[in-house]
Amino acid sequence: MKENPLHLLLNPQSIAVAGASNNPQKMGTLQALSVIKDGFTGRFYPIHPTEKTVLGHKAYPSAQALPEAPDLLLLIVPTSLVIPMVEDFTGIGTKRAIIISAGFREVGPEGAAMEERLKEIARLHKMRFLGPNCMGIVNTALPLNLTIGKMDKRPGSLGMISQSGTYVTQTLPYLHERGIRFSKAISCGNEANIDMVDALEYLGEDEQTKAIIMYIEGIKDGRRFIETAQKITPHKPVLAQYVGGSASGARAGLSHTGSLAGPDFLYEGIFRQAGVIRCHSIEDLYAHGWTHATQPPLRGNRLAVVTNSGGPGTAISHNADLGGMTVSRFSDALQAKIRELIPPHASAANPVDLTYHRDMNVLSTQIPEMILQSGEVDGLVVHGSVGSGFLKMVYDHMKEMAGGIPEEDVVRQLAQDLTEAIALPGKYGIPMTISSFFGRLDDNTVKYMDGDIPVFDSPEKAARGMVSLFSHLKIRKRKPIVKPALPEVSPEASRIVKTALDAGQNALDERQAKQLLALYGVPTTREEIARSEDEALKAANAIGYPVAVKACFWEIMHKTGKGLIELNIRNSEALLAAFRSVRATGNGADVLIQEMVSGSRELVAGMTRFPGFGPCVLFGLGGVFTEALKDTTFRAAPLSGVEADEMLNDIRAKELLGPFRGMPAADVSALASILQAVGNIALLHPEIAEIDLNPIILAGPSPVVVDALIVLARVIQ
Amino acid sequence: MKENPLHLLLNPQSIAVAGASNNPQKMGTLQALSVIKDGFTGRFYPIHPTEKTVLGHKAYPSAQALPEAPDLLLLIVPTSLVIPMVEDFTGIGTKRAIIISAGFREVGPEGAAMEERLKEIARLHKMRFLGPNCMGIVNTALPLNLTIGKMDKRPGSLGMISQSGTYVTQTLPYLHERGIRFSKAISCGNEANIDMVDALEYLGEDEQTKAIIMYIEGIKDGRRFIETAQKITPHKPVLAQYVGGSASGARAGLSHTGSLAGPDFLYEGIFRQAGVIRCHSIEDLYAHGWTHATQPPLRGNRLAVVTNSGGPGTAISHNADLGGMTVSRFSDALQAKIRELIPPHASAANPVDLTYHRDMNVLSTQIPEMILQSGEVDGLVVHGSVGSGFLKMVYDHMKEMAGGIPEEDVVRQLAQDLTEAIALPGKYGIPMTISSFFGRLDDNTVKYMDGDIPVFDSPEKAARGMVSLFSHLKIRKRKPIVKPALPEVSPEASRIVKTALDAGQNALDERQAKQLLALYGVPTTREEIARSEDEALKAANAIGYPVAVKACFWEIMHKTGKGLIELNIRNSEALLAAFRSVRATGNGADVLIQEMVSGSRELVAGMTRFPGFGPCVLFGLGGVFTEALKDTTFRAAPLSGVEADEMLNDIRAKELLGPFRGMPAADVSALASILQAVGNIALLHPEIAEIDLNPIILAGPSPVVVDALIVLARVIQ
Repeated sequence: MKENPLHLLLNPQSIAVAGASNNPQKMGTLQALSVIKDGFTGRFYPIHPTEKTVLGHKAYPSAQALPEAPDLLLLIVPTSLVIPMVEDFTGIGTKRAIIISAGFREVGPEGAAMEERLKEIARLHKMRFLGPNCMGIVNTALPLNLTIGKMDKRPGSLGMISQSGTYVTQTLPYLHERGIRFSKAISCGNEANIDMVDALEYLGEDEQTKAIIMYIEGIKDGRRFIETAQKITPHKPVLAQYVGGSASGARAGLSHTGSLAGPDFLYEGIFRQAGVIRCHSIEDLYAHGWTHATQPPLRGNRLAVVTNSGGPGTAISHNADLGGMTVSRFSDALQAKIRELIPPHASAANPVDLTYHRDMNVLSTQIPEMILQSGEVDGLVVHGSVGSGFLKMVYDHMKEMAGGIPEEDVVRQLAQDLTEAIALPGKYGIPMTISSFFGRLDDNTVKYMDGDIPVFDSPEKAARGMVSLFSHLKIRKRKPIVKPALPEVSPEASRIVKTALDAGQNALDERQAKQLLALYGVPTTREEIARSEDEALKAANAIGYPVAVKACFWEIMHKTGKGLIELNIRNSEALLAAFRSVRATGNGADVLIQEMVSGSRELVAGMTRFPGFGPCVLFGLGGVFTEALKDTTFRAAPLSGVEADEMLNDIRAKELLGPFRGMPAADVSALASILQAVGNIALLHPEIAEIDLNPIILAGPSPVVVDALIVLARVIQ
Repeated sequence: MKENPLHLLLNPQSIAVAGASNNPQKMGTLQALSVIKDGFTGRFYPIHPTEKTVLGHKAYPSAQALPEAPDLLLLIVPTSLVIPMVEDFTGIGTKRAIIISAGFREVGPEGAAMEERLKEIARLHKMRFLGPNCMGIVNTALPLNLTIGKMDKRPGSLGMISQSGTYVTQTLPYLHERGIRFSKAISCGNEANIDMVDALEYLGEDEQTKAIIMYIEGIKDGRRFIETAQKITPHKPVLAQYVGGSASGARAGLSHTGSLAGPDFLYEGIFRQAGVIRCHSIEDLYAHGWTHATQPPLRGNRLAVVTNSGGPGTAISHNADLGGMTVSRFSDALQAKIRELIPPHASAANPVDLTYHRDMNVLSTQIPEMILQSGEVDGLVVHGSVGSGFLKMVYDHMKEMAGGIPEEDVVRQLAQDLTEAIALPGKYGIPMTISSFFGRLDDNTVKYMDGDIPVFDSPEKAARGMVSLFSHLKIRKRKPIVKPALPEVSPEASRIVKTALDAGQNALDERQAKQLLALYGVPTTREEIARSEDEALKAANAIGYPVAVKACFWEIMHKTGKGLIELNIRNSEALLAAFRSVRATGNGADVLIQEMVSGSRELVAGMTRFPGFGPCVLFGLGGVFTEALKDTTFRAAPLSGVEADEMLNDIRAKELLGPFRGMPAADVSALASILQAVGNIALLHPEIAEIDLNPIILAGPSPVVVDALIVLARVIQ
């Protein structure tokens, strides 16, 4: 296997920094200081045109003056100097660079051209680089810090990949405050050379990294992202935040790193397909990621709640329920054991509510251990473990009563030993999260954080952190995804498309569309074209009444409500009337006599091409509800059977596919095959721009495509 | 108007505390200390059986020994002492009490009996009390603190009503950390006497309180809650968190304050009806409440975003979009003005992204003021204003370069003046929220907090705080709600119900149900009962083909898929066949010949009675989709026209009610009238337990009730 370009970039033995000086106001200086101060033990070469030393290190005027070709070049220079400097360093043999400098693709065409030139130079000299317009990297294993801020040097287990530099640098104090520590963090910038997927692949294999988080404004190569993530996510959790999917989000992101954003619903589907857990805030991304990185995986959905306050206990239970977990009553035996430790009126049922109780050891260690031992639960949330935080809250009022003992001494005297509590998740292989309102001003909180137990500042969040683990349980249980082989192109289908294009059509007509679909095994209505009353009668007799009568011409994309369709025609008399009327309204267009399929379960399948993702398949509720309810889901083609099945389970109305109000269960494998076929057709026929099969009706168990629209595009890449 | 019982309770001139001692380990002592230390200037009387002084104050052995009847009694005594002490104090004329002691309704039948006795004594002596099982109150205006913790004495503007004591006491340091200050906070406990609605009414009229937040585990008197809130919410925001609506949430809550929780969907509807903004975490409740309490109301949905980092700017925009706000491009003129202050490649469009920029005055004050002056926006979110927080992040690395100047001195030297920035919302009447990752370790954050500008620790949250203000704009714009007068009882309807009950029916049959509905103006299908083939033919001829043929007997509650219904009968031959078949399958039951109403838009209306709320009306998507999509909404009856209209707008599929895919717009006033009628029928006929009108079909614009089920209950209160 080819070595990932990030390996050397994150683990250099020698680093040259251009853009650092002896002025502490400069960003480059701050970044060089981070190299020097945060434990890097390799060789460090400041590049400076005039200074003899920079930050106490011998400085060099150019690449050529260096005693060796450094493994890594860090550039924080004016935009115009980037290309010359990269050329200099490729000249001496440096193979990795991080380009912090901005002013490229994100600022417009001129910058984009410069970025292209940069890519060319790199390609030519086999240099791999991060950026431009990024904010550096962190590798706590080395340690190496190339950001502007001070790093927590204790190695962590959370890997971060970010299209925003802020989330790798400006949040370092935020993360420290919350006890969250990176393994590696990578700010990707414009991704001109090394991209997010390279980073994902690297962290997927990095042993220090136990969970991966991604901040995403746009994915360039969707298919590679999906396939890379699918390899990682069954064993290592990947979480992502995506904010580019709304109008202003997309505009803001474009001006930021020049990333092209896609609609939110598309990314929602892509993340599901990839096995990536979606987060909706940077806070959740960090905190849930940290929970995955530090806790044993969840093995079931049974949650225990231990609290000393009813409100938070209720909130935790409620949020666990919403996330599909259960907070079930403990067995009588377990309750009896717990009851020995708690006040008489306190509840032992789950939540265990100790009420106002001063013995923190019972809350933090004894009851949790009883519960984890019992085998009755898969996860645990504890609320209310507090030490100095509580004391600080009351000390001011009682200091006189405390006989003048200073606050710090009281805190020290009352300090609790949480060693056993912190060891519980490891000991029992069961994850635990903590809810506390006291933050770092409480010594218990700090002990938990230092012991790699995630602490959340509200009960809802502690529950949601656990629910995030539950999401990964579902991903671990996914059936293996085998990339499907594409079928052969049907020459007959190619002929249909070519004939239509040659005839100047922008779409296939309904009959052509269904013929094409049928060639790929998609079940469609029995139907015949009729150009005369005789043909209509003959067709209807062959198909059998009742029938539908429709105008059939490629320009008619939607027929409803325009007199171009008549349904439920039951006899020859009605047929002739319908034929005449439809033919007249359709200005003499061909008429389609079609088997009448009725059923109250109407579905839709379709295909749209999205930049970066190629053809994507849609499935959802069809008929009049498609627009009104927007109960749809997307995946990128091609679809494996597992992926198609998952689409069927995505929709809110999925109950309709089971046996439902006297109707038989849908043939889900037939439905899945339609979705796979739609994706395959798009991949095999690049001239097809869009597919819309709506409705697909479930009369009995079997789906039938009742109407079909296939839009063509003259030039498709 | 009657004085609210909380007025005296929150503003006493004299307080007796029973349960405090000279032992600082006791909760009662901590609460007494809060009275003494946190600024209460009235008279304070510790009650203690043996001590001569408590906390330096003369102690009294009993109520009778006191020099006066104190305005307020605070009880933190063992459960068994509560009733005797309350009796003693009512005996000397004390009219208000706060009962912290637990062990009442929340622990079971014995406690419940004691609570009833307590209520009786209070009623007898006109004492009003809070609790039992509560945690006290805070009134920063007096000031008075009856909780166990130290209170921020600077008066705030946020009123809190809580069914969990923790959220009034244990979160005081949490709130201080986030700059949030109460006006008044009330822990309600078991609500044996004074309840949440009393508190809501009080804070609604309290001038110090600019916004009200409520933590709710169950509402006892739903109708009073709705009516009280409806009076307050058009001018003062009320926000609520409800966590009792899931299985474990309900169980946890019940064991906590003994509150009876209702299903989540019911509370969702009730909050909408009341104009209450729902929050889904205690964090949002506090932070959004604080935003409402401190910021001018939002007057439109146009948001400006100013940032020095792209990621957060994108996240803010995305979340504003999701919440229905727009982040639109500024006018060219405004952009030109902004461009003069920012680097050449920075974006002036909105979001304004200054990129890495050191002049915080531009970010915090100058650009925000330009934007607010422009008249182009209704709200502003600023990300990235930071002072000492940034310095602390880099100081360690650069302290040698700083020439040994201590961190504090550098912080002081670089301190920014945010006076003008903080004054902006007041000056322009436009709300502002701040996003910062640095928390209280940053002096800018502290300045904002002290200046009553809400600071959020992530960009998404700052945007969601603004979106919460947008929710209140919609509530302010609600049409006035006039409580509707109930119609007269229809004697004919009463007769139908009585006849059915006398006949031993547990439900009306379909024909009876529709007759009853029609008496209250509900449009139903034309239909006739047929007991013979002749009658069937006659009925069908009178109604006109096509018709539906249904078995009609009260025990048949659902007909689909059992051979008890045949649809689309088009002629006499088919009618006779259908009649025979349905009559046979129905074991000779009456047969209903019914006008055939077809249409793809099927709705449902219904009624269920919920404890605490009485009859509640349901509206939603009908037919097979009712169960599969659960696109429904609830309100408590009776419904005003405005409330019924709002229900129609609640469903996700509301587009279906407009002109839709060739179908005419629904007659929404006819639909609203059906909902009002359903509520009125339930109020006028207490024997009716449930109503289920499904489907209501829109063939054209007018809704018709096609099937109806009315369930009876022998004993209804």
